[in-house]
Amino acid sequence: MRIPIKDVTPECERAEVAGWVHEERDLGGLTFLLVRDRTGILQVTIPKKKVSPEVLAAVKEASRESVISCEGVVKATDKAPGGRELVPETLKVISRADTPLPLDVSEKVPAELDTRLDNRYLDLRKPRVNSIFLIRNAALRAVSEFLWDHHFTQVQTPKVVAAATEGGTELFPLAYFDKEAFLNQSPQLYKQMLMSAGFDRVYEIGPIFRAEEHNTVRHLNEATSIDIEMSFADEKDAMKVLEEVVSYAYGKVADTCSNELAVLGLNDFEVPTAPFPKITYQEAIEIASKKGEALTFGDDLTTAAEKIVGEEMGTMYFVTEWPSSTRPFYTMAFEDRPEVCRAFDMMHPRMELSSGAQRCHVHSKLVEQIKGKGLNPDAFEFYLNPFRYGMPPHAGWGLGAERLVMTMLDLQNIREGVLFPRDRHRVSP
Amino acid sequence: MRIPIKDVTPECERAEVAGWVHEERDLGGLTFLLVRDRTGILQVTIPKKKVSPEVLAAVKEASRESVISCEGVVKATDKAPGGRELVPETLKVISRADTPLPLDVSEKVPAELDTRLDNRYLDLRKPRVNSIFLIRNAALRAVSEFLWDHHFTQVQTPKVVAAATEGGTELFPLAYFDKEAFLNQSPQLYKQMLMSAGFDRVYEIGPIFRAEEHNTVRHLNEATSIDIEMSFADEKDAMKVLEEVVSYAYGKVADTCSNELAVLGLNDFEVPTAPFPKITYQEAIEIASKKGEALTFGDDLTTAAEKIVGEEMGTMYFVTEWPSSTRPFYTMAFEDRPEVCRAFDMMHPRMELSSGAQRCHVHSKLVEQIKGKGLNPDAFEFYLNPFRYGMPPHAGWGLGAERLVMTMLDLQNIREGVLFPRDRHRVSP
Repeated sequence: MRIPIKDVTPECERAEVAGWVHEERDLGGLTFLLVRDRTGILQVTIPKKKVSPEVLAAVKEASRESVISCEGVVKATDKAPGGRELVPETLKVISRADTPLPLDVSEKVPAELDTRLDNRYLDLRKPRVNSIFLIRNAALRAVSEFLWDHHFTQVQTPKVVAAATEGGTELFPLAYFDKEAFLNQSPQLYKQMLMSAGFDRVYEIGPIFRAEEHNTVRHLNEATSIDIEMSFADEKDAMKVLEEVVSYAYGKVADTCSNELAVLGLNDFEVPTAPFPKITYQEAIEIASKKGEALTFGDDLTTAAEKIVGEEMGTMYFVTEWPSSTRPFYTMAFEDRPEVCRAFDMMHPRMELSSGAQRCHVHSKLVEQIKGKGLNPDAFEFYLNPFRYGMPPHAGWGLGAERLVMTMLDLQNIREGVLFPRDRHRVSP
Repeated sequence: MRIPIKDVTPECERAEVAGWVHEERDLGGLTFLLVRDRTGILQVTIPKKKVSPEVLAAVKEASRESVISCEGVVKATDKAPGGRELVPETLKVISRADTPLPLDVSEKVPAELDTRLDNRYLDLRKPRVNSIFLIRNAALRAVSEFLWDHHFTQVQTPKVVAAATEGGTELFPLAYFDKEAFLNQSPQLYKQMLMSAGFDRVYEIGPIFRAEEHNTVRHLNEATSIDIEMSFADEKDAMKVLEEVVSYAYGKVADTCSNELAVLGLNDFEVPTAPFPKITYQEAIEIASKKGEALTFGDDLTTAAEKIVGEEMGTMYFVTEWPSSTRPFYTMAFEDRPEVCRAFDMMHPRMELSSGAQRCHVHSKLVEQIKGKGLNPDAFEFYLNPFRYGMPPHAGWGLGAERLVMTMLDLQNIREGVLFPRDRHRVSP
């Protein structure tokens, strides 16, 4: 019975393991193979004169990164990682790796990101790279568990749609039999329709697609979005869920991924505590303007402004009360000052992580707001109808899973947090 | 503070609720409103002479399916559902429903499925329809929890891809900037690459896209697939995870969704216990042939054959040892009889739920098998490379989430288990 390498301890008498040949060293009478599985690394020590000819032949065949299995006696030793080594009685090459490898897996030779992504199956074998995805899994698991425990129903909304969420730009068109269709940019319109349907609280974790032409270290053309929508709620309720779920996800990563955080050198990993500080848009542009990034009401926050405010805040924070002109048509304006709306962004000091708002749930106002953005309400009939037959007040947000991982782990490029990223130039592997 | 309707008990002194006007009855001096939220139904009793003019005006405005909120005194009564009623001191119409409604929500007037899907936001308000999605949520939650607890890492693989999974047919083409791309039919090739990357066990729950021309009650063009892949495993290991996860999901639904099952009339809901019976393909075609559906080795199981064998088995079961000619190129053949392969289908008596296999992990054989299916290995280079640099033996399966829900709840049409189905003719809402 194969056991995980982390379970091979000096106390084991015998063990069978399988994994990849991480390194090999030939010292004449002794050969050392370091064998790696996803749980750790084990030194396999082969005293050439004491093992069978079959084992010797297999060791010779076992090039670096080959998959092997072996079984034998476990011995305590100070000289090997984990304080133990395995002396094999049987050793088999299950899948021999060709030489040379297209990418070095030992992390000794740095490679360009493009080379790494072209050979992602090798790149992902690096403990550092693998750790990112174990942490991503833990963070998304925590998000799901938190939302389920808070009575959110998980839903799956369609990715092939007939209408644009926010009107026409940045869509990938699709031939859907004899119809025109698009890949959905966001589950926004669908999760709002589900509020009219009486679901009360929904969440979705799924792919979104944006045909943005520009290629940056923080944009993807296919990304994973965490979306919620909740009924009989305002933007403050939505922000509360958001800060709590993010804090919970950080906490779960801290609790369950200490090995992976150590591999990534994040020994001072800090869990942000909810509630997060909140400043208004007006306060944000004043902070930015004071430090040389002059903005006036109605401007979007520039990357430079985000940086200045982020440094000032020094932690996760919210920017609230945005100019209505800067937000999508489905946002609810304040009754007494319609130029400002109930929208928020949640910011990491490095960048925006999430946008949300209380939504406009009044049919006549929504039609006006669609027209006000230069869009045709007829194109949104399927979405507007629910507002005519009983729509509760509601609020929600979308949180980019990749940006969450990128900022959590201080990754320099968002592609590092995606198994097989899709960008302006990359659609393979 | 609004509370869920299920929490309004005869013991409450006062309560505030919000929801949809499910029914209204005017008995002269008394008006009854039944108010519905996702947790239940509450009778709101309005003695016309005792309430304020504001409440009376609001009651008049509150057409069926309008969203209202009300607050008042809770009284015990035998005559109302749940043994209690609310006499409102305040009552407000939050969102008035236009009349007439495009679809009856009371379930008294049956509607065609197409009409229901056109007005899905109303259709989903029916307790019967809503229950399907609460159960779907519970089942998929159970699947995730089971797989996480069994050391599967959740992954997200790309939906926009450059190559067809199984070679060319039934793909939706896509304009990806200046490149040709497709919507992925299955995460198959990606989850296999992750085995080479050392993930050991992965799972994904995500959308898959198939451009099948035919429109049946059991096919969708966009569906949700539950996929796993595991290393150092054979088809028996994969079947064990499958039967256990399905049994676990049924068990969780039985434990946590008794109200929803009752709404659906499924009072004799049975949890299938693992292990499920296993018969070989050869045995299956013999059973079918004896009952009039003559099949010979190499034929696929027809719908008629599935029905005959399903009736004979009477429970969930596996069909194993399929002819290699009937399965995709990535399936592993038996060494000693290559015309048969390590593939399986998991069957509900009504239909196939899942397909899986041990995969071929040997590069040279895989190239032969790709050629044997008339495909060009060059088109699969990105997928084949990982097999050249250390690929462990591995096995896995894909399980259709909609078919799981459809058979679990005895739905007649697979579209009933999807919020916004996509089929040959439908891409909206």
